[in-house]
This record gives sequence, structure tokens and C-alpha cells, in this order.
Amino acid sequence: MLVKMTLEEFGDVLGSDAPAPGGGSVAALSGALGAELVAMVCRLSIGRKDLEAHAQEIKTGLLEADGLATGLMRRVDLDTEAFNSVMAAFKLPKTTDAEKQKRAEAIQTGYKDAVQSPLSIARECVSVLNLSKSLLGKTNPNALSDLGVAAQQAYAGLEGAIMNVKINLPSIKDEQFNSSTSGEVSQLLKYGREAKDDVYNFVSEKL
Amino acid sequence: MLVKMTLEEFGDVLGSDAPAPGGGSVAALSGALGAELVAMVCRLSIGRKDLEAHAQEIKTGLLEADGLATGLMRRVDLDTEAFNSVMAAFKLPKTTDAEKQKRAEAIQTGYKDAVQSPLSIARECVSVLNLSKSLLGKTNPNALSDLGVAAQQAYAGLEGAIMNVKINLPSIKDEQFNSSTSGEVSQLLKYGREAKDDVYNFVSEKL
Repeated sequence: MLVKMTLEEFGDVLGSDAPAPGGGSVAALSGALGAELVAMVCRLSIGRKDLEAHAQEIKTGLLEADGLATGLMRRVDLDTEAFNSVMAAFKLPKTTDAEKQKRAEAIQTGYKDAVQSPLSIARECVSVLNLSKSLLGKTNPNALSDLGVAAQQAYAGLEGAIMNVKINLPSIKDEQFNSSTSGEVSQLLKYGREAKDDVYNFVSEKL
Repeated sequence: MLVKMTLEEFGDVLGSDAPAPGGGSVAALSGALGAELVAMVCRLSIGRKDLEAHAQEIKTGLLEADGLATGLMRRVDLDTEAFNSVMAAFKLPKTTDAEKQKRAEAIQTGYKDAVQSPLSIARECVSVLNLSKSLLGKTNPNALSDLGVAAQQAYAGLEGAIMNVKINLPSIKDEQFNSSTSGEVSQLLKYGREAKDDVYNFVSEKL
């Protein structure tokens, strides 16, 4: 499992000539780091008298951040597995017509899975961005830059995940699937960018 | 050492209520992941007949990417150490005037170190961005999204590092230091953004 590797080991296998792990797993990790930073900022805010008015929201935010961090960290491995299933489908036998048909279907299923994975990463990165935005002005001011970094990481995860959706769409022959996926991608980018810009502007003004 | 932790362990300590590691170490890690992805893209490009014209540039790029990845991964730990030295300075005794003076100087030195660390991260992230940009159209097209993710990660690392520079500047009393640092920060952001946009536009058009 990738998440059981040390940072150094993960870096080495990432930089190697193995196609997986690649950008998808990195996008998931980036989102997870963002969520962990939001969790840290919440923990550094709990119990502060000056933030008492936001105590409940901080606690709820912490729960959500922890959940998103766990989910996105899991996707570091899931994304590489999804990619491996496409590779496995390509290696299926293709001698008889029945084999060719079965292989083609497995490839299509593989690609759809390979798209579903970064799509989920993108959705969860948007959740991290919205959560960061919702906490602006309600958390420990000493950790303001950490909230800013959290949003940058989640946004990089979002953009990276979407590139991994887009690179696979041309291989999928289901037009309806592609059209609804493209529509969701546009929405995710729109909302993610808005939240990232709001966090960036708030943090930049105060730094 | 943080880089000897597993991804999961690093995530846990990041999300904890310990102020370090924080955004600075995450920015370094983000840049390192970007550099590793550039290294992967170079490795997946070496030996391809259709890229023979760029073989030398790819090899040089790989060397640079590997170096930047190693350097940025090291900064994951260095950044947390720099922050710890500020914390240590605050804990120095402050009973006598001599002690107060020594403590104040140690705090100033600590903050300058704490700024130097993310400033180096920012410089190296810009190098990753420029390297990604220089490789556009010269690497394995199947790994195009990975080059795009690399730039996103390096850019998030750049923005995150700069937030960590800015949050510490108000604590530093050396105006000349602050002014030259702010000037460099603006330049790094300018060049980093340009390179990121160029990579993004190139990748987006082809995806």
C-alpha cells in the first residue's frame, strides 16, 4: 500500500519509470494534506476564549476535515488500483471474437473506473475548499497561513484530479457518460475556484 | 524525521494540534511531489523514437528534476526545524537585561531563519515550474496530465511557501531584510504564475 510507504519511498516510486502511482494519487494526497491542515487549524482553535462564538462550527469542521483527510488518503491507493485495472484489461487475450468482445468491455469498464476515481478526488477537494472557506475568520489567527496552504493544496488536488478525468474521457465511447462527466467537471472547477479565491483573498489581506 | 514517516503517519501528525509540521513542510512536500512527477515524465520519455530530437534535453531535465525532488523533500524536515528554533528562542530565560537582550536577538535570528526556509522552498518550486514549462511538447504525450499535475503541485508549494514567508515578516524588525524579501517574493510569484499558466494552457488544450 502506498500510504504505508514513507514520504521518501513514495517520492522514489513516484519519480520512477512506473506509470503508477502518477498524477491521480498525487492529487488525492494533495487533497488529504489540505484536509489535515484544516483539521490542525481547527484543533489549534478549540478552547480559545476569543473564538468561543464559533466553538460549535469549529468542532463540526474538525469532524468533517478528519473525514475528508481519511477518505482522500485512502484514494491515494484506490486511484493507482483503478489505473492498474485498465492496464490489466489491455493484457486480456484477444484471439477469438468472444475474447476481443470481453476485452473491449473490460477496457471500457476500466476507463470508467479510472475516471470515477479522480472524479471522487475532485469532489472531495471541493469539499475541503468549501470547508476552508466556511472557517475564514473563525479560527486561530496564528494558523492563518496554514488555512491558506490548505486551500492551495486542495485546489492543486482538484485541478490535478480533473486533468486525470480529462485524459481518460477520449477513450470512453459512452457519449452520455462523457457529457455528464464533463458537466460535473465544469461545476466542480467553478465552485472550487471560487472558494480558493475567497480563501486566498482573505488570507492575503491579513498577512 | 518527517520524511521517514509513512504518508498516513505524516497525515496524522500534520492534522494533530502540534503547530509543527504545518504549512511550510506541506509546501515543501508539494514541490517535491511536483519534481518527482517531472522526473517520472522524463523517465517515461527516454528512449522513445518520436522524442529523439529532445533526448538530451529530457536527460538534463531528469537530472534537474531528481535534484529538485531531493532538495525539496529535505526541506520538509528543515522547515519544521526552522520553526522549532523560533519556539526555542521564546523559551529562553528573560530575567536579567542581558538575558532579555540575548533572547530578543535569538528570536530575531529564529524568525529570519524561519523566513529563509520557505523562501528557499518558493525558489525551488519556481525551478520545478520553469522546468515543467521547458519540457512542454517534448515528453511522452501519455503522461501529459502528469506534467500538468506536477505544475499544479509546484505552484501550490510556491503559494504556500510564500504565505509562510509573509506570516513571519511582521515579526522581523530589520526593514532592509523585509523589503528585499518582499521584492523577491513578488518576483517569484510573477515568474511562477507565468510558468504555471503556460503549462496549464498547453495541457488543457491537448486534453
